[in-house]
Amino acid sequence: MTFKIKYKDKKTKARVGILKTKKGFLETPLFLPVATKTAVKFIDSLRLKELNVKAIISNSFILSLNSGLISLIEKMKGIGNFMNFKGINFTDSGGFQMYSQALYEKSNDKGVLFKNPVNGEKIFMTPEENIKLQLRLSSEIAMCLDSMPLYENSKKEIQDAVRKTILWAKRCKEAHDKLQKNKNVYNKNKRIKRQLIFGITQGGIYQDLREYCIKELIKYKFDGYAIGGFGLGEKRKDEFKIIELHKKLIPENKPIYLMGIGDPIEILEAIKLGCDIFDSRMPTQNARHGTLFTSQGKLRMFNKKYESDKNPIDKRCKCFVCKNYSRAYIRFLLREEEPVGKELASYHNLYYLQSLIEKSKVAIRKNKFFEFVKSVKMVYKN
Amino acid sequence: MTFKIKYKDKKTKARVGILKTKKGFLETPLFLPVATKTAVKFIDSLRLKELNVKAIISNSFILSLNSGLISLIEKMKGIGNFMNFKGINFTDSGGFQMYSQALYEKSNDKGVLFKNPVNGEKIFMTPEENIKLQLRLSSEIAMCLDSMPLYENSKKEIQDAVRKTILWAKRCKEAHDKLQKNKNVYNKNKRIKRQLIFGITQGGIYQDLREYCIKELIKYKFDGYAIGGFGLGEKRKDEFKIIELHKKLIPENKPIYLMGIGDPIEILEAIKLGCDIFDSRMPTQNARHGTLFTSQGKLRMFNKKYESDKNPIDKRCKCFVCKNYSRAYIRFLLREEEPVGKELASYHNLYYLQSLIEKSKVAIRKNKFFEFVKSVKMVYKN
Repeated sequence: MTFKIKYKDKKTKARVGILKTKKGFLETPLFLPVATKTAVKFIDSLRLKELNVKAIISNSFILSLNSGLISLIEKMKGIGNFMNFKGINFTDSGGFQMYSQALYEKSNDKGVLFKNPVNGEKIFMTPEENIKLQLRLSSEIAMCLDSMPLYENSKKEIQDAVRKTILWAKRCKEAHDKLQKNKNVYNKNKRIKRQLIFGITQGGIYQDLREYCIKELIKYKFDGYAIGGFGLGEKRKDEFKIIELHKKLIPENKPIYLMGIGDPIEILEAIKLGCDIFDSRMPTQNARHGTLFTSQGKLRMFNKKYESDKNPIDKRCKCFVCKNYSRAYIRFLLREEEPVGKELASYHNLYYLQSLIEKSKVAIRKNKFFEFVKSVKMVYKN
Repeated sequence: MTFKIKYKDKKTKARVGILKTKKGFLETPLFLPVATKTAVKFIDSLRLKELNVKAIISNSFILSLNSGLISLIEKMKGIGNFMNFKGINFTDSGGFQMYSQALYEKSNDKGVLFKNPVNGEKIFMTPEENIKLQLRLSSEIAMCLDSMPLYENSKKEIQDAVRKTILWAKRCKEAHDKLQKNKNVYNKNKRIKRQLIFGITQGGIYQDLREYCIKELIKYKFDGYAIGGFGLGEKRKDEFKIIELHKKLIPENKPIYLMGIGDPIEILEAIKLGCDIFDSRMPTQNARHGTLFTSQGKLRMFNKKYESDKNPIDKRCKCFVCKNYSRAYIRFLLREEEPVGKELASYHNLYYLQSLIEKSKVAIRKNKFFEFVKSVKMVYKN
């Protein structure tokens, strides 16, 4: 068993779990900062450690666009060693990049045709090739290559994306099983020696398509299941219904990873519905653009009223940024595009999310998660 | 007496001194990282503290281009408080910005006409106005407004720049004296309560022009003297002769500040000739562009041979970057323009310079500075 539930909240579907990887244990709920190209923007691995960030996610397809890089990382004994990150590395497949006009050309049953925006080179990515990439990166958790539809696609187009997603998930799992066959054993610390692999569901906001996708994917017994295709414009209400469907169909002992979601309230609501893992570039991207998370809700730093505000971003926050710098100073640096401003703002937003997750775990253990979410939501409505 | 010599090397003109400012004592030799707009690029004030950086220099004219900022910093009780920098703040005048085609329009005996590159607004900067700016910023050390000639100017043009530099220095000193009259007293820690003010000499590589400029400036009894106009293409041999001239003419008990110089060997040679203070954006700028200082000389990180190099930037360096990251990783990040790469490289170069200065002080105290410079130069020639 790679995932074990430690506590279950009595009033909601929220839970605290332990995911066992080849490098160590990960407690859920868990938020993964995005380190697409082996670095979180403006936050080095030591500061990630200081922030108590236990896991991050990089992008295998984007890394493969850099000629020689996959071999280099392999030579450096994997992505974690390369960036000296002591935590757990997830790698994404590249399926999500099908949304990008700069990268995506077309796809068929065999795989996806991407183009390299730097040199125009065409790359045909098959599920098998993608799994090999992720194994070469030696991440602890690999994600299946999924066929991501656009939010604006017709139901018929989304249905076709679901069909390909299932086809590729099967091929990813088979390739992964074959390549990791010898490592499907446990070491003396009871940690499985192989990389874990998660399936990704698609189907937009259509219950029937998602249901079909989930039911097919669980046949392959993935280590976890990710909900793909969200964070791109859908209504929260629709998203939450789809999450509920996943909870109904996916076995209790499997972690559920809601991809691309970084909004504090959205994360809490999803935890309440039983999701375990999240990732998003939003917290650091928002920070760079002046939107900061606080115990009093979101702070839009560019608002004129903070121009000479001597207070920290958040009086109740204990991060080094809030202990040392004023809103006025950070606002000025952000407006001037000074790198230090982006660094300080990014650090604070990650610190905020990390604390929010820690507080969530405490609340779950006390069966108070419902009340906790309510109290945070009240503040964010202001 | 605001400057006191603590140790004098027996074989060279190198010395260790103490500069007393209203905020605290500063030991020389001293290197000032450049924080033009209240931040060193990619290094926040806490990391400056960690780097043991005791003083930095910002630019009063450039700060004044930002509407409302001088008032804001005034409201925040000065530049040091604004950026939460615990050390000593120097402010430059803006004379150096006369080299910039984007900023400089023309000058006459009354002052300099600049233009704001953002909104095209014209700003006429007089010596008196500039001193007021620096007092409003509440820096510990102000620099005179100098008239900086271009390196390619004719001797006649440089002579005219010297004439204006002397005229403006007198007016800066008079305005400063008048505005700081009440603060020209000592507190119980024997620290003078007023801001210090340094004169800046010009005259290019012409001995006669520099001599005239120095002799005029010392009449006004500045707290220190800066050598302006270097770091723009002159030969080192010529520069060193001009430094020697300054040492001959400037009273022993005044600190000498060689402006715009950040090359490790050039700094050591200048310390050997009796210079005390240095500043330059070069160490951090070089770092961002892949040139790193090491105990084995300069490392050009973009060289292909470092592509999969697992070694730290400098095996002998004790900075957190060298303790934690490989050349291969930093090289990759710098090539990708990832902010973390720029941050790590900048930190290392500042750490290197800080250590070099610390080692210089030890060598001076042991009368071994000549040998110390020789040993560093030997490595940098390879």
